[in-house]
Amino acid sequence: MSDLFWPGIERADGLFDDAALLAAMVAVEQAWLDALVDAGTAPTRVDLSGLLGPDDLPALARAAEAGGNPAQPVALALRERSGSAWVHRGLTSQDVVDTALALCLRDVADTIASEVAGQVSRLAELAGEHRSTLMAGRTLAQHAVPITFGSKVTGWLTGVLDAADRLGALALPAQLGGAAGTLSAVTELAGSAADATALVDATAARLDLVAVVPWHTSRGKVTAAGDALLSCTDAWGRIATDVVTLSRPELGEVSELAPGGSSTMPHKRNPVLSVLIRRAALAAPPLAATLHTAAALAGDERPDGPWHAEWAALRDLARRTVVAGSQATDLLAGLRVDGDRMRATARGAWSDLTAERVAIAAFSGTDVGTDNYLGTSDALIDAVLARAATYLQSAS
Amino acid sequence: MSDLFWPGIERADGLFDDAALLAAMVAVEQAWLDALVDAGTAPTRVDLSGLLGPDDLPALARAAEAGGNPAQPVALALRERSGSAWVHRGLTSQDVVDTALALCLRDVADTIASEVAGQVSRLAELAGEHRSTLMAGRTLAQHAVPITFGSKVTGWLTGVLDAADRLGALALPAQLGGAAGTLSAVTELAGSAADATALVDATAARLDLVAVVPWHTSRGKVTAAGDALLSCTDAWGRIATDVVTLSRPELGEVSELAPGGSSTMPHKRNPVLSVLIRRAALAAPPLAATLHTAAALAGDERPDGPWHAEWAALRDLARRTVVAGSQATDLLAGLRVDGDRMRATARGAWSDLTAERVAIAAFSGTDVGTDNYLGTSDALIDAVLARAATYLQSAS
Amino acid sequence: MSDLFWPGIERADGLFDDAALLAAMVAVEQAWLDALVDAGTAPTRVDLSGLLGPDDLPALARAAEAGGNPAQPVALALRERSGSAWVHRGLTSQDVVDTALALCLRDVADTIASEVAGQVSRLAELAGEHRSTLMAGRTLAQHAVPITFGSKVTGWLTGVLDAADRLGALALPAQLGGAAGTLSAVTELAGSAADATALVDATAARLDLVAVVPWHTSRGKVTAAGDALLSCTDAWGRIATDVVTLSRPELGEVSELAPGGSSTMPHKRNPVLSVLIRRAALAAPPLAATLHTAAALAGDERPDGPWHAEWAALRDLARRTVVAGSQATDLLAGLRVDGDRMRATARGAWSDLTAERVAIAAFSGTDVGTDNYLGTSDALIDAVLARAATYLQSAS
Amino acid sequence: MSDLFWPGIERADGLFDDAALLAAMVAVEQAWLDALVDAGTAPTRVDLSGLLGPDDLPALARAAEAGGNPAQPVALALRERSGSAWVHRGLTSQDVVDTALALCLRDVADTIASEVAGQVSRLAELAGEHRSTLMAGRTLAQHAVPITFGSKVTGWLTGVLDAADRLGALALPAQLGGAAGTLSAVTELAGSAADATALVDATAARLDLVAVVPWHTSRGKVTAAGDALLSCTDAWGRIATDVVTLSRPELGEVSELAPGGSSTMPHKRNPVLSVLIRRAALAAPPLAATLHTAAALAGDERPDGPWHAEWAALRDLARRTVVAGSQATDLLAGLRVDGDRMRATARGAWSDLTAERVAIAAFSGTDVGTDNYLGTSDALIDAVLARAATYLQSAS
Repeated sequence: MSDLFWPGIERADGLFDDAALLAAMVAVEQAWLDALVDAGTAPTRVDLSGLLGPDDLPALARAAEAGGNPAQPVALALRERSGSAWVHRGLTSQDVVDTALALCLRDVADTIASEVAGQVSRLAELAGEHRSTLMAGRTLAQHAVPITFGSKVTGWLTGVLDAADRLGALALPAQLGGAAGTLSAVTELAGSAADATALVDATAARLDLVAVVPWHTSRGKVTAAGDALLSCTDAWGRIATDVVTLSRPELGEVSELAPGGSSTMPHKRNPVLSVLIRRAALAAPPLAATLHTAAALAGDERPDGPWHAEWAALRDLARRTVVAGSQATDLLAGLRVDGDRMRATARGAWSDLTAERVAIAAFSGTDVGTDNYLGTSDALIDAVLARAATYLQSAS
Repeated sequence: MSDLFWPGIERADGLFDDAALLAAMVAVEQAWLDALVDAGTAPTRVDLSGLLGPDDLPALARAAEAGGNPAQPVALALRERSGSAWVHRGLTSQDVVDTALALCLRDVADTIASEVAGQVSRLAELAGEHRSTLMAGRTLAQHAVPITFGSKVTGWLTGVLDAADRLGALALPAQLGGAAGTLSAVTELAGSAADATALVDATAARLDLVAVVPWHTSRGKVTAAGDALLSCTDAWGRIATDVVTLSRPELGEVSELAPGGSSTMPHKRNPVLSVLIRRAALAAPPLAATLHTAAALAGDERPDGPWHAEWAALRDLARRTVVAGSQATDLLAGLRVDGDRMRATARGAWSDLTAERVAIAAFSGTDVGTDNYLGTSDALIDAVLARAATYLQSAS
Repeated sequence: MSDLFWPGIERADGLFDDAALLAAMVAVEQAWLDALVDAGTAPTRVDLSGLLGPDDLPALARAAEAGGNPAQPVALALRERSGSAWVHRGLTSQDVVDTALALCLRDVADTIASEVAGQVSRLAELAGEHRSTLMAGRTLAQHAVPITFGSKVTGWLTGVLDAADRLGALALPAQLGGAAGTLSAVTELAGSAADATALVDATAARLDLVAVVPWHTSRGKVTAAGDALLSCTDAWGRIATDVVTLSRPELGEVSELAPGGSSTMPHKRNPVLSVLIRRAALAAPPLAATLHTAAALAGDERPDGPWHAEWAALRDLARRTVVAGSQATDLLAGLRVDGDRMRATARGAWSDLTAERVAIAAFSGTDVGTDNYLGTSDALIDAVLARAATYLQSAS
Repeated sequence: MSDLFWPGIERADGLFDDAALLAAMVAVEQAWLDALVDAGTAPTRVDLSGLLGPDDLPALARAAEAGGNPAQPVALALRERSGSAWVHRGLTSQDVVDTALALCLRDVADTIASEVAGQVSRLAELAGEHRSTLMAGRTLAQHAVPITFGSKVTGWLTGVLDAADRLGALALPAQLGGAAGTLSAVTELAGSAADATALVDATAARLDLVAVVPWHTSRGKVTAAGDALLSCTDAWGRIATDVVTLSRPELGEVSELAPGGSSTMPHKRNPVLSVLIRRAALAAPPLAATLHTAAALAGDERPDGPWHAEWAALRDLARRTVVAGSQATDLLAGLRVDGDRMRATARGAWSDLTAERVAIAAFSGTDVGTDNYLGTSDALIDAVLARAATYLQSAS
């Protein structure tokens, strides 16, 4: 799916797009049908695979408006093409859409987790390599005290590890509740509430999703997923913000491996990956806000609009986060660090960078030290590297 | 462009999508090139039409990431295929993208203006027809005093007219500034600043856009466009919210012409158009917030990420507003009004609906009137109808 | 702190307001000073309590603008009034503000956790009591299949329990990093990095906060706190949305214990608590978005504006969530449930509510059952009640 | 009203705060009462001034929760203290609150308009003064082509002028509609619809506000006001973003007159005004989004929560915009421009800054010019200065 308005979107090809959602909806219908057959409720196994494909997307999408969601035309088409009236029997559209979103999100979560693990490795490597690379610490855009590039990188790493801690929220459970969350129809079909519950469990198991009570209007898991995606774009956005600043020619402390050119200025070396990551980080928070507003307005047994606002917001958040994650991986992999320039700037600004130290010495009546005034920098790097190692061990 | 995640998006087919943006970028390059030729700066007229089409979109989109925007690969491809090195000469990517956005937005504005005009007519008609259709006024979801459906409709109409007043902001000027907004290259090519300015004016005239000083980092016109789109979805969202409420079976005062069915409940008559309009109204405000955040961060002579965040936000806002507008037109055209039910409910709740009147009578020592307690309802309807008539006259 | 613009704010009196922040900042300075003294770095114990109080707030607030944050005038005043130049020595303003925010947030978290526990109890009680209270299930605002009020309440309860699961994120660690996060000054003062680290640990322990590496520009914990607050307002907002709908006179299934009156209509019984909770739920998501945007832009070693945007956003989110939580507790405690009306409406709409069942029976060739068509309702209620019991056990 | 969480808020003292809202509500009640008396509807003139003051705020605020808004306790107290039962007769709470918001906003609009006019003058002055001050143009944070500081300033000026164009939207009309927007009670009191309408007109005239049909649920004017406030913070945010960048020590091209100090680093010269303006610009867009969401959900004849969410959002937007505007005025008034440093940097990067020119010369086979490669810079400055002059003439 090309998108001239979001350069780089191809990095999310195959993830959480129309084709993926369609495949996921078919997978949900198949799992449900198989569970019905296994339980002896539906008569014969029917293979739904291959009945709907990318070519059907335009017609399905067009047909989705009448009922307000894409599950209805999919169910109808599957019934017609399979000849089995058992397809979708006992489900409601929201079951199919929500569970399909869960499947789409799982692929996204796997992709992001893998990017994050790679970034943690790379950042740990950078932090170690530049543990002693002196540079000017900057606060409110002004020189503060000396740091090392390694300690700056551990700040980036801390942000990515914090995001990694939230990735567990990137999982939605199966949604199987029937018309109003009571599994009314399937209880009828299966013969008893216990049998209906067993069908839910079996279907979730087939899809490798967690089974919970229906959450048609309890959207906390959706917002948690959105928030977790944001925690990633936040972490990368902050790194990209630093890279853009540090790659200004007047600073020149880092640069991207393959900066972008200009359509008119041949000398240009734009920090394009960073720029595109910042774009994603700026566009993401409002999308997650939409998910929360939708959650707060999720009335009745199934909502009257808020739910419908979730799909595209979650899709855009998910796909763009995948793109930004992949770009962040590339950015870090190719980051050029000019340690000499860092050192030179720090040494050139030494009297400013050590003004605090002079003040402290004056205050405490001691001599101004002569080493690098790096405080606990080493210990902090060690602490974050240890956390990274623990994470990588558990992630592998 | 199908979109399973936004049912109804087909209503915006051809507007502000990848193909439209590509065509608009080519139109910008053509207008510029023609102006160069007309001015005697470039040698020979070159026809760029047909050189790039929908089939090129995937490759162009993919190539857009390297430089960070879609104008670069388009300019490159046009140069290659036309054989003219004059293509894009003197422009910068942002010139082409921003001006192309202006062209895309113009088509959107025309479409929305036409929908709005039709809605104003229809609402005026409804207000007249139901000027005296008694119903319960409701505030904070409780019965208040009597109103008529006609007076309620004039409230809707006021909202749409207020939005209509803001539609003028749905226009972006041409952006022709060169690398850093000084038209440096084209001044060189054209020979003088005056000639360069003339080229800008000629190009804008060819595109039928307004020429202004470069606005690479003055994004007020972009945010104004976003805000104007919101004013539309706000106005329709409020109507849809009313329709959803009034079509609850316990109220039953209005219904949609072709309510949506359910995948499992054969009796269902869901107010689907209203639900989808509410979806758009809930998802829109955060997108406009992105435009404002981008505007506030638009630093240097061209921004380092914020600008890139605008395109998709504006695109989604624009296309979804077109969809919601078209759905609102259908909703209003087909709205079924059950005047008997309205009256019956109002009469059934008459003692509550006239509690204020009884209190007023007790306070002022006068008799409780016996007519419909509708206050200035008629005059208000007349006032709004007059405003609508004035608008329609100026809009036609 | 009165606030005519946010009725009910008094419910958060004493929490996360100016006085609380001031007290927290003094507590941070005290803990740091005590730790310095304990370690033998600073000479003598100094008691900062009572040196600054509510009367100082106007002057301190006014003085905060010069340096851009409130910690600077507080530190200066404490030094002057205590006569101890050791106050704040080794800290930076952001250390004091961030750690004070952590203290303010802790009180808020305790309050919210207590409200949530009470709500879980009350909701469990309601769910049990109304396990069999038949009512119409409603989806997309239309009648769907029958449910019980008990099963609806378990939906509310699930939302609150999901929010409860996220309350753990309502905790910020201590922030003790010095000028650029390297503890440079305190290392100088204490004599070694190890001693500096020990001071951090000791200070955090005195404040009963977790000690972590400095997070001046790694704002994931701040966004997580904001997101967790949202998860609460989302859960309550959805309940309030249901209550507003169900208390419409045409539905009349629930009502608030003490509905609000009108300034002009004596009969009015407005669902005021629900209205005010919905207000909070609508205003909250954009505030959390601000926290995320700030996180994504947190550049350098301390940010140039984004950090400053966090304080009021977090304060408003926190205080309003406390208010909404307290109002939700009252709403649930006093909720009047009209079971007879629920049943009557459901029975009156029985053919619609069982249309699915008839279709299922026709499909499967079986008889239409004669019981209440409640599916797995009982089992779902049991499952959620069990979850609630587990939660209450762990929460007590 | 001190606010430790928003340093600088004192700049908005007296504007749109609790005391101002109270005074405005009293003014609305007074104007209405006077109109009633003038029309011979109410018997005797009653002076409400002095009956309620700042000391009453805590009790009024506390009492506001019961009915959900502050107008009810104010009306009640005015009736009690004035002894006149005619107070508020015929109005509804929303009339009083909305019209009071209009009065509060008018003072804010006047203040902002005055700041903006001053800024336009100052920016025009700066643009003229630095018309030829050579500096490096920067795009995507990299050197692009040469500009002058004057041309950069005209970009800032364009943004401020665009915002100025939107300031007209910073005006709300009077809201006088009665319980459900039909003026039912006042029609009863006044004797006829025409008399009721005349009362509305007279009251609006007394308040110097525009009279329109009731807009209880047509909130387009509220969102327009919010959007206009944003247009200001956007314009200033962009200037502040540039100042923060240009005042980095590695660039050193501008600095604030009175930069902020640090609590620990004596050398620090933080661009505090710019930082605080950026804070406001980042926090504002989400608040305006709340206004739009509220508008889209404004159902029935008066809304069930969305309206209540508007007040604080509009208040915060308005007051913070006043603060940011005043800070922007100070920032511009005191901006130190280091023209030598600008020139030196530009000359030092000359080969990069003229790479485009060399390419153009190679392309067109002409000589590389030897002047400053500033394109149409002079003409653009002239154009913007002319626009500024026109604005200042019309504003004075």
